[in-house]
Amino acid sequence: MIGMEQKVILRPGERIDQLERRGYRIIQNPDTFCFGMDAVLLSAFTRVFPGETAVDLGTGTGVIPILMEARSQEGSYTALEIQPDMAEMASRSVQLNGLENKISVLCEDLCRASAILGKARFDIVTSNPPYMKTGQGMASPEPSRALARHEIACKLEDVVREASALLKTGGRFYLVHRPGRLAEVFEMLHRYHLEPKRLRMVHPYAEEEANLVLLESVRGGNGWMKVEAPLVIYKSQGVYTEEIWKIYRE
Amino acid sequence: MIGMEQKVILRPGERIDQLERRGYRIIQNPDTFCFGMDAVLLSAFTRVFPGETAVDLGTGTGVIPILMEARSQEGSYTALEIQPDMAEMASRSVQLNGLENKISVLCEDLCRASAILGKARFDIVTSNPPYMKTGQGMASPEPSRALARHEIACKLEDVVREASALLKTGGRFYLVHRPGRLAEVFEMLHRYHLEPKRLRMVHPYAEEEANLVLLESVRGGNGWMKVEAPLVIYKSQGVYTEEIWKIYRE
Repeated sequence: MIGMEQKVILRPGERIDQLERRGYRIIQNPDTFCFGMDAVLLSAFTRVFPGETAVDLGTGTGVIPILMEARSQEGSYTALEIQPDMAEMASRSVQLNGLENKISVLCEDLCRASAILGKARFDIVTSNPPYMKTGQGMASPEPSRALARHEIACKLEDVVREASALLKTGGRFYLVHRPGRLAEVFEMLHRYHLEPKRLRMVHPYAEEEANLVLLESVRGGNGWMKVEAPLVIYKSQGVYTEEIWKIYRE
Repeated sequence: MIGMEQKVILRPGERIDQLERRGYRIIQNPDTFCFGMDAVLLSAFTRVFPGETAVDLGTGTGVIPILMEARSQEGSYTALEIQPDMAEMASRSVQLNGLENKISVLCEDLCRASAILGKARFDIVTSNPPYMKTGQGMASPEPSRALARHEIACKLEDVVREASALLKTGGRFYLVHRPGRLAEVFEMLHRYHLEPKRLRMVHPYAEEEANLVLLESVRGGNGWMKVEAPLVIYKSQGVYTEEIWKIYRE
């Protein structure tokens, strides 16, 4: 591992962070964009079975496929990122962990994912998309942060449409989003023949409103959805619940 | 109150239960159908403002409007029930509590609610509908229980369509249902121009899957939905959480 690290170039402003899992590390630039807890919770919510193929739409630092591989030690991943600098940084993180045979980062627009990668070919699609419509809240002056937070480069519909097109029948789409937009998410999934099957609300505290929702949908699925126990982040101010510790460390 | 009780006839098999709120009582027949916690939680989830008019679709024992009136001391209620014996029993419970001027029970099919009561006239619609499609699970041999549990006399779409038709623009629809059918509920609400605005999952224990969902939707509303803190029933086996005690007793 240390040997490999030597080969990876760090650009100005970048740092290497520990992922606390299998010794994996990730390159981030705090001046532009760092991954959030959302990506960690989404990767922990996924299930990857041997031999499965996965696509991450809008991968940013590449944290989702890297953590999915770290957790499952299964699967092969294609990660799309529209920003050339970010895609190049994600590639270096893949290299840093010696995962070149398992994760490919492509600098491509996720809106064209199925045209580039092919239709009905994948078992899994993941996405931690921008949550806010343009015009909602303040856009960041930092372009990477603005793209990550606001629907500038892609809209919810683009993500759902491409997820559906990429997946085989029975394939699974894992999405993290704001509960505030859940009605719209459900409507969009329905429009593109993805059936929500497993949902988990994330609450900062047990007595507070949810601020994230994790959702597993199945291409061409039908029927019943399971709403799992709520995922609570803090048990008291600044103190994570046992489950959050497990997600980060175990 | 005691004076009033004397005037109300109890039929064979019926009993009078305390509602633990303003001294209100309710007639039930344990051989046919008793209201469940679902109805209590839904009535506690509603908000009723002075002068508002409400319709309860499929009222059964009449427990929802009786509890809503008990909690809010506001509103006037029309309760539809298709089964003549049940509607007559609900009327006697209204009488038992001296609420004849506030709650009217009509023996009518909820599928025709807006044709009977008029369109776009009400502020609130409530419903604790049957949760199961016909063919799902075992139908009860007892007809009242079968109608309450299975979509024999009405389907989800009938309930949502009539709720939408009855409500004024900005009017509120309160529904309790199984989380398993949430995707279908959202799709149906969308179809009938009802926007989900406030959702609460109900979990038997904090670490278990949700078994009920409470939902407030607004006719012609748009935008953002709030997912409230989870409502947990038990803190340990057979021991209610403080919040459940409050809902029942305070």
